[in-house]
Order: sequence, then C-alpha cells, then structure tokens
Amino acid sequence: MTPGPVEVDPRVLRALSTPILGQFDPAFTSIMNDVMRMIQQVFQTKNQWAYPVDGTSRSGLEAVLASVIEPGDKVLIPIYGRFGHLLTEISERYGAEIHLLQCKWGEVFDPEVIIAEMKRVRPKVVALVHGETSTGCMQPLEEVGKACREQDILFIVDAVATIGGANVQTDNWYIDAVIGGNQKCLSVPSGNAPITYNDRVEKVLTARKKVERGIATEVELAEIKAHAPIRSNYLDLAQLQDYWSPRRLNHHTEATTMLYALHEGLRIVLEEGLENRFARHQYHEQALIEGIKGMGLELFGDKRWKLPTVTCINVPEGIDAESVRSMMLEQFGVEIASSFGPLHGKIWRIGTMGYSCRKENVLFVLASLEACLIRHGVKLPAGQALQAALNFYSRG
Amino acid sequence: MTPGPVEVDPRVLRALSTPILGQFDPAFTSIMNDVMRMIQQVFQTKNQWAYPVDGTSRSGLEAVLASVIEPGDKVLIPIYGRFGHLLTEISERYGAEIHLLQCKWGEVFDPEVIIAEMKRVRPKVVALVHGETSTGCMQPLEEVGKACREQDILFIVDAVATIGGANVQTDNWYIDAVIGGNQKCLSVPSGNAPITYNDRVEKVLTARKKVERGIATEVELAEIKAHAPIRSNYLDLAQLQDYWSPRRLNHHTEATTMLYALHEGLRIVLEEGLENRFARHQYHEQALIEGIKGMGLELFGDKRWKLPTVTCINVPEGIDAESVRSMMLEQFGVEIASSFGPLHGKIWRIGTMGYSCRKENVLFVLASLEACLIRHGVKLPAGQALQAALNFYSRG
Repeated sequence: MTPGPVEVDPRVLRALSTPILGQFDPAFTSIMNDVMRMIQQVFQTKNQWAYPVDGTSRSGLEAVLASVIEPGDKVLIPIYGRFGHLLTEISERYGAEIHLLQCKWGEVFDPEVIIAEMKRVRPKVVALVHGETSTGCMQPLEEVGKACREQDILFIVDAVATIGGANVQTDNWYIDAVIGGNQKCLSVPSGNAPITYNDRVEKVLTARKKVERGIATEVELAEIKAHAPIRSNYLDLAQLQDYWSPRRLNHHTEATTMLYALHEGLRIVLEEGLENRFARHQYHEQALIEGIKGMGLELFGDKRWKLPTVTCINVPEGIDAESVRSMMLEQFGVEIASSFGPLHGKIWRIGTMGYSCRKENVLFVLASLEACLIRHGVKLPAGQALQAALNFYSRG
Repeated sequence: MTPGPVEVDPRVLRALSTPILGQFDPAFTSIMNDVMRMIQQVFQTKNQWAYPVDGTSRSGLEAVLASVIEPGDKVLIPIYGRFGHLLTEISERYGAEIHLLQCKWGEVFDPEVIIAEMKRVRPKVVALVHGETSTGCMQPLEEVGKACREQDILFIVDAVATIGGANVQTDNWYIDAVIGGNQKCLSVPSGNAPITYNDRVEKVLTARKKVERGIATEVELAEIKAHAPIRSNYLDLAQLQDYWSPRRLNHHTEATTMLYALHEGLRIVLEEGLENRFARHQYHEQALIEGIKGMGLELFGDKRWKLPTVTCINVPEGIDAESVRSMMLEQFGVEIASSFGPLHGKIWRIGTMGYSCRKENVLFVLASLEACLIRHGVKLPAGQALQAALNFYSRG
C-alpha cells in the first residue's frame, strides 16, 4: 500500500509467463500496434506516437527530456516535491538552462504564478509533475497547458503517479509530451514506461535525427543533419519512433515480456473504463480518509489539491515514523511509505492505486496502522477507524 | 532459433508471475544480493560491483560507456560487425574522440594489430565486442586485455551474445567492465542487462559522482565535485551503484519482475555449471554444422573464430533469403535471422543459445530449412541433413 510499486493485477502476472515471440514476428508486431492504440486511449489523445520506452518510468522521463532539450535551451520547472527535482536533475544533465519556481512541499502552484514566470523567462519547455507522490499533491494542468500553446512553449508532463488512476487529458489540456508509470495505477510491473507526444515534439526530434551507422544506408548517412544530435542512443525518441513505425527499423531488442504485461494492463484499464476507474479510486480514497479521521489522525496537505491516489498522514508528535512502518511490514506484511527530504519522518504515505485500490486493502491498512500505533503508545479511539470506513462503504 | 531473443526457460517464465515485493522490503533486497553474487560467478569475477541495469542489453552498454567516457576521451573501437558500430554510435554521442580499426565482416582481428594501434593512439578506453551475432564471429580477448592493463587503458567488453553460452573470463582476461545479455544464452527475457566492473572503473565513476538533489543531504550537496558529470541520470552507474550498495540510496523503481527472471535464469546457469553449459553449446553447434554440411550448404566465416552460439550459412546463389526465412516462420513456426549491412541477403544466421540450444530444436531447424529450400527449387541431397545430425548425436 505504498505509492508504488503496487500489487500487479493477477491477469498481468499470468500474461508475463507467455513464451517469447521474435520481435519482427507479425504476431508480435500486432501486439505492438494494439499497445499503441491502447496508450492513445488511456492518455486520451489522438497523437500518432504513443509507445513504451524500455526502462522504468524514469527512463521515459529521460527519453522525452533528452530528446527535446538541446544544450542551452531554457526549461522552466515549477517544483512542489521530490519529482520536480528529478525533472531538474535530468534536464540539467542534458545542458538545459534551468529556471525554477518552488513552493512549499504540501502545496501546489496557482497556475497564474507559473504563467507569469513563463512570460518573464520565455522558456522552450515547461516541465511539470502532475501528481507528486512525495507530498500527495496534484497540480492542475489545463490553464498552464493553454498558456504554453499560446506562447509556443512545449509542455512536458510527468503523469507517472496519475495515469490510469486520475484524469489525464493529454489533448484537452494541451500537453505536448506526457510520461506515464506502470507500477502505480496501471498495476503493471516497473520495467517499461508508456509515453505519448504530438507533432510539435516530433518536429524537434526530426530536426535532431540520426540513423545508426551499423544499419544505415548510404543515402541515410548523407542525410544526417548537422543539428545538435540527441545525446543518448538508448533513449533517443527519433530512433525509437522508427522502430515503432511501420518501417520497424531495428533498434534494441524489445523487452517482450514487459510488453505483454503492459498490453494486458492497458486492456484491463479500458475494460473497466476510464471514468469508472477514476471513480473507483476516489471512492476508496474517501473510505481511507474516513478511517484515518476516525482514528483521530490528521491528513497532510489540503483536500483541494489532494492527489486522489496517495493519502498522506501527519505522524503524531513524538512517534518514530520508521518504527511504526517497520512493525506494519513485519507483523502484518503491509507496507506503507515514508517520504523524502523535508518531509522525511514527518508523514506517512498510503497509496490506493490500480489493483491495490480495493475495499479489503483499505480495511487492512487501517487495521494494521491502528494496531501498530497502539503498540507505540498512541492514545486513540480503538476500533473507530474500521467502523468509520465500514460506515462509508455501507452508505454505498 | 535466431541469435536472440530466444526461448525463455519455463522456470524463468514461472518466476515472472511472482507477485511484486516492495523494493526496500528485506525479502526483495535479499534477492538483489543473490543476483549480485550469481552475476559475479557467471562473469567469473571477484568484482564487488555486479548488478543489472534496468533496460535492454543496449542500456547496459550505454550505462558503462556513458559513465566512463568524458567528452574528448580517446576511445579505440576495433569493428568486425554491426555491434562494433553500436559501440561507436554510443561513444560518439557521449563526446568520445573515436579511433576505429575495421576488418572485413566475417573475420576477427589479430590481437597484435589492436595492440599496435593502442600504442599509437594511446586511448583511455578500448571497447570491443566479444561475440558478433551479426557475423557469427568471436574475438579473442585475453592478449588485448593484458596489453590494456599494462598500458593503463580501460578495457570494456560487450559479451551480450556470449555470456552463459561461451567462456567469458572477466578477471583472467583483464576486462575492466563487461556487459551481458539476457535474451540470448541466459534465456531470460530482454529487459535488464547484467554488468560488472572493477575498481579501476569505479575510480572513474567516483570522480564524476553526483547525488540527486531531491534526496541529497546538505553535506552531499557540498561534496558534489566540479568534475565532468555523467550525462545520463537513468544510466549513471555512480548512482546505480549506491542503490545496489548496502546504503540502498533510492534511484529508480526497480524492475521487480525482471529481477525475478534474471535471478531464476542465473540459478539455472549455475545449477548446470559453466563448463557443462559451454560444452552443451559446442555439442549442439557441432550437430547443427554437420546437418548443414549434410545438406550441401556452406558455412560463412572461418571455424577458427566461429562464435559457438551462432552459425551463419551462405545463401545459395540465386535464392531469395527473405522468402526462405518467411516460409520457415509461416509454415513451421521456426524463425531464423538474416543479417545487416553488407551481409543482408547474403547469409542466414541460426542461434543455438541457452534453453533453445537442444537436440529437438537443432533437428527441427534443419528439417524446416531443408523443406523450404526444396520448395524454393534448390537441388540438395534430400534427407541427408537430419541423417548427418542424427549420426553425430548417436556418436554421443
């Protein structure tokens, strides 16, 4: 019950055991095409390019940033938690001139503040985290996206923690490139990262394109342009795009098994339906909140910008947060998370994501948290957490 | 029966379905430690650092090259097939001053030629492919490794096609960093890449180290050195090493399922025993060769430097190589490979790797190749391929 990695759906676990197909076998390329179509649907986009990068979510973030950012490009990053720092870290390595906005961990930005800074800095890229699992906050995106499009700025969004659990409207919110995460609301193991981007991003990639010498024809070698090439080969979207195109130009050996897993995970999301799935996440989030309040604990952060898939709790005064967490894992086999940087030891974080977001999990995490708090000497109204959650569930 | 991806061992397929553990759960960190120990054994090394990179084999190559090469570093790359070009491609992107040696595809280098060039160029790194699946050749490494150590040059080896199938003696051959591949002789799906490197490489990494801002303490921030930082974050071995150390400093979300798979794949290799495994690969290679000769076909390349895990066949004059390949896949469900660049359409490549390297597979690939050649009008001594292979097997 951490904010990822979460339990994998049993159907996905079964799909992982499927024997390997060759990567140019028509049976396999047909799975690739299905995955592209389903990523488009889950990301709510008409973008042509929608495919996974073969690495963890972080590889998806780096692939997009590395492929878009040329040395010296201005990148504006509004930071409201750990993963904003990660966007900075990656962008810096690829030579960006970084401009930061920061707000207190536990809050989000007024879009007007970001838009005003965009006008001042005039960046090539705005990079923003949609759901910050480190603080349990979710940044509204639509206004920022609209302003980016008007000012011809590329808008890159990290939706690792929200895709498949909260609404991510790629096209309606004017997002140019977005990266999702497997191991959270999609309930697929970490190991590949679905991304999508539009023709505004493709234009940048095309200008920087490079065909690998070992497989390039003479004509292609001659065509290689004198543009700042993309620095990574493994995470070069211009090359990955060729591999995912009907041309299927050889790049890496596709991570076959992980593609089976993502394929099944996306099918499950679409069978449930996006609206139903978002509603389910909000429903169990509410049950968890009622239970936590019933126990007399306080939520961290403001409900107005709460990430529906992660619930943060203030650690009661004088309690060793790590000791409670360890006891829950050792005694109950239930894992919840601590946090990073300024919030380390101050909050616990509970994920209700994907397959893990269900009634019995919410009830057991409440039961084990209560028991471990009592063992740590916390005075609380014993039994009330589960009664409050059950009351919520019986209201239907 | 391509030179990868090959069939995954059924035990590995089952391991893939294991439910997800949290990445700091002691049950999971104990699996991580087991994997490190087993990589050391399979790579025949006492190196402290031996762990997988979370991406396909190519990500392992890029992680090593990106972490070692600083802009302007001289890198000598002797190329004898496609994957030498890949080493060049990656090294170039990270700013290396590249020095190439090239020989005809289908041959390997006399070590003395490489050593002479090392003396002339005085590079920081020599990067070399051990087994070239594109040409079916295997480069002897020991003399080059010894010369590198004497001249204080870092020796980086791509053993993607050989690890677990042919002898790779990391320490005895003075290899400083080596990258293995899952989807070939280890018979694990593509998706993570086992690597190992020694303290000579670690020294380079340490000098370039960077701790992520989102999780760095003040002291660590102050310690960040003014050295040329490693350009990639995802493939930064200095950071990955911290995650694989007892400190377990958070980096990416580990690809849990892929680690289960690698864990089981390595166990299988060590249960069989390295010597037995190498002997099994040579045994079935020989059966395949006898069958091919029995059919009246010619091998491509010289037996003296033949890669034991890949067998290349000259396409008979006037025959459409792709058409034969497609017929084998469509009619028999048996996939063999074509090649790249100058060899495209000229040779077929058959892999006998890992779990796929067994008697029935050798017999079926011969049977289906013969049948499809006859359907393409090739005159050959019908039935002789299987008789020759069976004769070999009955000699024991």
